[in-house]
Amino acid sequence: MRILGIDPGFAIVGYSVIDYIGNKFILIDCGAIKTPSTESFPLRLTKIYDDLNLIIKKYKPDAMSVEELFFNQNTKTAIQVAQARGVILITGCKNNIPTFEYTPLQIKQAVTGYGRADKVQVQKMLQSILKMKELPKLDDITDSIAAGVCHAHSAKFAVKL
Amino acid sequence: MRILGIDPGFAIVGYSVIDYIGNKFILIDCGAIKTPSTESFPLRLTKIYDDLNLIIKKYKPDAMSVEELFFNQNTKTAIQVAQARGVILITGCKNNIPTFEYTPLQIKQAVTGYGRADKVQVQKMLQSILKMKELPKLDDITDSIAAGVCHAHSAKFAVKL
Repeated sequence: MRILGIDPGFAIVGYSVIDYIGNKFILIDCGAIKTPSTESFPLRLTKIYDDLNLIIKKYKPDAMSVEELFFNQNTKTAIQVAQARGVILITGCKNNIPTFEYTPLQIKQAVTGYGRADKVQVQKMLQSILKMKELPKLDDITDSIAAGVCHAHSAKFAVKL
Repeated sequence: MRILGIDPGFAIVGYSVIDYIGNKFILIDCGAIKTPSTESFPLRLTKIYDDLNLIIKKYKPDAMSVEELFFNQNTKTAIQVAQARGVILITGCKNNIPTFEYTPLQIKQAVTGYGRADKVQVQKMLQSILKMKELPKLDDITDSIAAGVCHAHSAKFAVKL
């Protein structure tokens, strides 16, 4: 099973392509879609749609796993990220990729076995599972890998959206 | 100038097509995109994208005017509407329609000349401007007409997004 893990954002969208075969993980690719702050908001959203389309067409994932939004105090940012997240969800649908959503708690639980694990614990576990010499520099990318691993662990229980 | 007015939502998206020629308004069409609650959220967003695409291709508007989100206490609803709003914005961009955003205050100001006008005042003014015998039953549709009229009144000052 090939999973496209996504950490939603409007300035940076982390993504990762992970193969999960016989309980083993292979990280095929990972990176970030970055949208320039000099562009208008609708054009930044359109760049996310276009770039994600290319990634889906290149890697043909069997499923997309998207982190749910964490509501913090900054409503303006949350609303902007939500608008980007809507774009991400339809990009999966338009390409007929089954799309799954997981909360940050579910993702930590699936990766480390402990829902309240801290960031370093999650990172160390991912590094071990995926046999990575070093982790990506951007947290957004690491978070997308965690979302992908979560879906692999949860897929047998998951309900398709 | 032909304007597509939009009142964003995820269950109901109000839309209206308005021609503004020589200071006169003609309501060409209006209606609502409704997404069934029995469908998954990503599929509901995809229906918004697909239906809005058809409306744009049918009426070929020169501009799209989208109401900005009003933040109320219900964060969950706001986040869902925001995800739909992101989809609406890229639908305009993918069709090369210049897209403009107005706050509820700007819309009331543009329609009635008074930013704190109540709903009934806005409705009466729209009915008069557009020579409508009766208003649409859904507030979402009326709100989309208000967004369209606002853009017509504001277009000479508007900065393209």
